[in-house]
Amino acid sequence: MSDTRYLQGPLWNNTYVVVMAGGIEGRFWPLGDETMPKQFLDVMGQGKTLLQMTVDRFADRLCPVENIWVVTSENFRQIVINQLPQVPDGNILAEPCRRNTSPGIAYASWVIKSKNPQANVIVTPSDHYIDPLPLFCKAVSVCIEFASETDSIVTMGIRPDYPATEYGYIEADLRYPSPTSPNIFRVDSFKEKPEMALAERYVREHNFFWNSGIFIWNINTIVNAYRVYQPHVAEAFETLMPLLGTDQEHDKVQKLYENLESISIDYAIMEKTEEIYVYPSEFEWSDLGSYSSLKKRLSNDLRGNACVGNGIRLFDTDNCIIHVSGKKQVIVQGMDGFIISEYDDKLLICRLSDEQRIDLFRE
Amino acid sequence: MSDTRYLQGPLWNNTYVVVMAGGIEGRFWPLGDETMPKQFLDVMGQGKTLLQMTVDRFADRLCPVENIWVVTSENFRQIVINQLPQVPDGNILAEPCRRNTSPGIAYASWVIKSKNPQANVIVTPSDHYIDPLPLFCKAVSVCIEFASETDSIVTMGIRPDYPATEYGYIEADLRYPSPTSPNIFRVDSFKEKPEMALAERYVREHNFFWNSGIFIWNINTIVNAYRVYQPHVAEAFETLMPLLGTDQEHDKVQKLYENLESISIDYAIMEKTEEIYVYPSEFEWSDLGSYSSLKKRLSNDLRGNACVGNGIRLFDTDNCIIHVSGKKQVIVQGMDGFIISEYDDKLLICRLSDEQRIDLFRE
Repeated sequence: MSDTRYLQGPLWNNTYVVVMAGGIEGRFWPLGDETMPKQFLDVMGQGKTLLQMTVDRFADRLCPVENIWVVTSENFRQIVINQLPQVPDGNILAEPCRRNTSPGIAYASWVIKSKNPQANVIVTPSDHYIDPLPLFCKAVSVCIEFASETDSIVTMGIRPDYPATEYGYIEADLRYPSPTSPNIFRVDSFKEKPEMALAERYVREHNFFWNSGIFIWNINTIVNAYRVYQPHVAEAFETLMPLLGTDQEHDKVQKLYENLESISIDYAIMEKTEEIYVYPSEFEWSDLGSYSSLKKRLSNDLRGNACVGNGIRLFDTDNCIIHVSGKKQVIVQGMDGFIISEYDDKLLICRLSDEQRIDLFRE
Repeated sequence: MSDTRYLQGPLWNNTYVVVMAGGIEGRFWPLGDETMPKQFLDVMGQGKTLLQMTVDRFADRLCPVENIWVVTSENFRQIVINQLPQVPDGNILAEPCRRNTSPGIAYASWVIKSKNPQANVIVTPSDHYIDPLPLFCKAVSVCIEFASETDSIVTMGIRPDYPATEYGYIEADLRYPSPTSPNIFRVDSFKEKPEMALAERYVREHNFFWNSGIFIWNINTIVNAYRVYQPHVAEAFETLMPLLGTDQEHDKVQKLYENLESISIDYAIMEKTEEIYVYPSEFEWSDLGSYSSLKKRLSNDLRGNACVGNGIRLFDTDNCIIHVSGKKQVIVQGMDGFIISEYDDKLLICRLSDEQRIDLFRE
């Protein structure tokens, strides 16, 4: 149990979380790879995987643990069960094939609506970094209250702390706070990952926020949005409803997914809907998309080295990230600007400035 | 069985080898350390430890395997038994404490004399590199023939291929070949590890040879030398003779060693005796005293990298030595002049030019 519940009364019982855990980001080789993507790894070296840390952010703080649902792919189902013993197995929805985020969110939405037509839902990636937790929980609880009272979609925006070219941006209209909450603003537009010059402009202009991929809505809002913008998807999941919890659910999902378009929730819904808002958050956030971005979020020593592992000793070494399994005894001398990563009989030593080439090295 | 016996008739049966395997050189951390010194490691990556390669050089080539004796310390005895199943356990002489090379050689000499008073003996370190084998066997067989016919000690000298400052040198008097063998010369003096300028002079003068630590002699020659130059040692082992092979041998050795001086065979005998010769050898030799010297003896790729391990892939990498256990999958990018060594949950990354500091890093 956590110290604090950030929501009370009916809002507590009506809050649901959909954790998206089907991605196959493989950036942290050799810690993981396509068969063990980063949500299932303890990349921060805190004894918990990113998926576990994600669930911990919500469970017993923003909702009861029984209200946490996980969307993943068939082949990761057992990993999720192992990593999340506190989440009921029935809350793990396994997609038979990869179809980007929209179909998975629809699947979870129809299932949750069948359980609780008053549900307010937070959709969250499972492989991101967020800190500090109280700031996050407070922000989410504000958004939940807002979403429960309106037919609006709320996106969690992150105030950029540098001109990132690796994130999408949300442009807010700061002249129009929402009628009920002074910290929630109407979204003007969604922006693709920008070039550096554009990213710098976004940061200068103060009304652009990183798109964290965290969305909050009332269950009826999202189901209606699917009905309007993705009618064939809505129809598909309507036909699934009578089979939920029966022996036929699995086969039906299998068949239904074959015909679903692979599309992100951003393209399918976000960019089309009118009633969409952004909450500019103050917590630190990262998608941990690379060793460099991980290094930024780990504590660095005075020479700019970040270490995960208990037995690491550095000499004449600067600006490195060293990531090794628990008790591995490591001595590093004379290095500057390198990734040193070791896991499960695999070792990577590579310049941080060349980390985009890691996948090429593996071929 | 090997293809070739380099000795025939009585010389074959009378040839004995004493392998000195009690040293605690720890230079190849993390492959080994003081508890598993380099003679017990597969530093060349050939599937055999240096001790095993040493024994293979002699067994069935220069003598029957039953004539091979190993001097080691009590705490390494089981390692030797495990690594040399072909050598009779009784041929492994365990010293109760470290006393440098002289007492161990005396111990083996008295034991061998008790088995065969006609023995000709080769004393050899267990942790050196020698190649090619036929040249080595030929050289040793010439020395054995010489030693069997004279009361001389023969040292195996190595023609230096660079001005090494890490080896001792033997100064030969090339005007005096031995009466019976044109390739064996009288020794003028033994020289300590020289400064660079002196080493360069030695190399220029053509009559200086590296002291390989390989000695060949008739058993009576060495026993008599001990009687003359180390009379208390001779006396000690005389008293051991009646107890050889009995339950009391172990206790007696224990007691006897307590009172023996720690001294090398070089100081105790070599530098004092008159009848001493050197055979200038043509084979490649190294004491493998460091990663640098190991790298010299491994095959290097076009960019000067030497790899031990089957799963190593290099990119933009030069002048490195990479030494990892068998199937470890390793990717190295952007490195120049480094040691990368991994074994048994320990990893070392260190500039080759700083390898003298490895022991300091471990403290």
